[in-house]
Amino acid sequence: MQKAISTAVIKRLPRYYRYLGELRKQEVVRISSKELSERMNVTASQIRQDLNNFGGFGQQGYGYNVEHLYTEIGKILGLDQEHKVVIIGAGNLGQAIANYGDFARRGFAIKAVFDIKQELIGKEAGGVKIRSMSGLKEYVLKQKPEIAALTIPKEHAAQVANDVVSWGIKAIWNFTPTELRLPKDVVVENVHLTESLMRLSYNIRAAQEKKEQELGKQIAAEACMESAATEE
Amino acid sequence: MQKAISTAVIKRLPRYYRYLGELRKQEVVRISSKELSERMNVTASQIRQDLNNFGGFGQQGYGYNVEHLYTEIGKILGLDQEHKVVIIGAGNLGQAIANYGDFARRGFAIKAVFDIKQELIGKEAGGVKIRSMSGLKEYVLKQKPEIAALTIPKEHAAQVANDVVSWGIKAIWNFTPTELRLPKDVVVENVHLTESLMRLSYNIRAAQEKKEQELGKQIAAEACMESAATEE
Repeated sequence: MQKAISTAVIKRLPRYYRYLGELRKQEVVRISSKELSERMNVTASQIRQDLNNFGGFGQQGYGYNVEHLYTEIGKILGLDQEHKVVIIGAGNLGQAIANYGDFARRGFAIKAVFDIKQELIGKEAGGVKIRSMSGLKEYVLKQKPEIAALTIPKEHAAQVANDVVSWGIKAIWNFTPTELRLPKDVVVENVHLTESLMRLSYNIRAAQEKKEQELGKQIAAEACMESAATEE
Repeated sequence: MQKAISTAVIKRLPRYYRYLGELRKQEVVRISSKELSERMNVTASQIRQDLNNFGGFGQQGYGYNVEHLYTEIGKILGLDQEHKVVIIGAGNLGQAIANYGDFARRGFAIKAVFDIKQELIGKEAGGVKIRSMSGLKEYVLKQKPEIAALTIPKEHAAQVANDVVSWGIKAIWNFTPTELRLPKDVVVENVHLTESLMRLSYNIRAAQEKKEQELGKQIAAEACMESAATEE
């Protein structure tokens, strides 16, 4: 049994996994926390601390074995199992997800895509045919996919989420700009794009303010130098 | 000048903004931190603490004025200005973003969409015509959009990001599964979908383990009760 790991560490794990995957592709066998820290732009001590959570992956004077660490983090992330995913909503976003090759490589298999629009049904998305929403219940009950990606208008999100959970879905990947209220044992991962854009906007403003501040200081310093020069 | 606000608070601000927006639509004039906390599933003291960062929005015995708080948070998030966005990459994901009505409503105006694929050029996405990448430089230099959304294959991400930044783009909304190394004054907001899916997968495993643990305890408890009953 693993001890509880903080959310912050969990948030960073996929990033470690990605970097280790790249190193593995480059056939790097081992790496020190220092080298890894330079690549990832995190402090070496942060890396050591984070990875210590999973016990003894690093060795003094040797560093980390890339393959081993990659495999272990993969297991922690549950990537050693295949996850069956259904996409509900075959609009642009649903199709983008269906066609995103990266997921299959990580063990997330897009098994089916559903939509209510007649003109979409029967068309292909990510190698599977788009099915009618009227068949969703039977599909979920029979095929028992674990994850449902919700890429539908937000007005329908709550109802559809409640339905699929009652049919056995264990996790919702929620792209709708709304909060879902579901039983505690259902896992929800939100991708709130508007909120992401708002953080971007906040940071643009903060960067502008910083620049203006620095410019102000510079102008003040120059004015000071000039007046000092005049006084001489 | 505002004092520095922690990243955690900034991360929560868009969520406050969204909830306040909903209250506003429902013509709610004022709300107590307690009511807001019930709706948002955050503690009331967290809400008071967060909003205190921005000084005196709440009043004892009155609560928060929804309209005022909504407007103020909007300003803090830089939503009182229009942001010009270009989308680079008109695949499914680029088109999904171009067509996402929520952005325009928040002041993010999708001004142009670019792609290299001949068959896409001239088609419409989000109300604008898809342009050829060969015209990107001139467009950015002349029209001075602030934000570039990168929805291209990751192999091209670094080069394109460097280019647009050198032409004056101030912020990158990065959907490619790669880390961009850009000058410090460039704002980058990442949407790493594979990482999001990995967190989902981690949490599925964690939920499973918790369930098994509880089941184990229950079985042990039942066995104990039974053996106690037998002994009587």
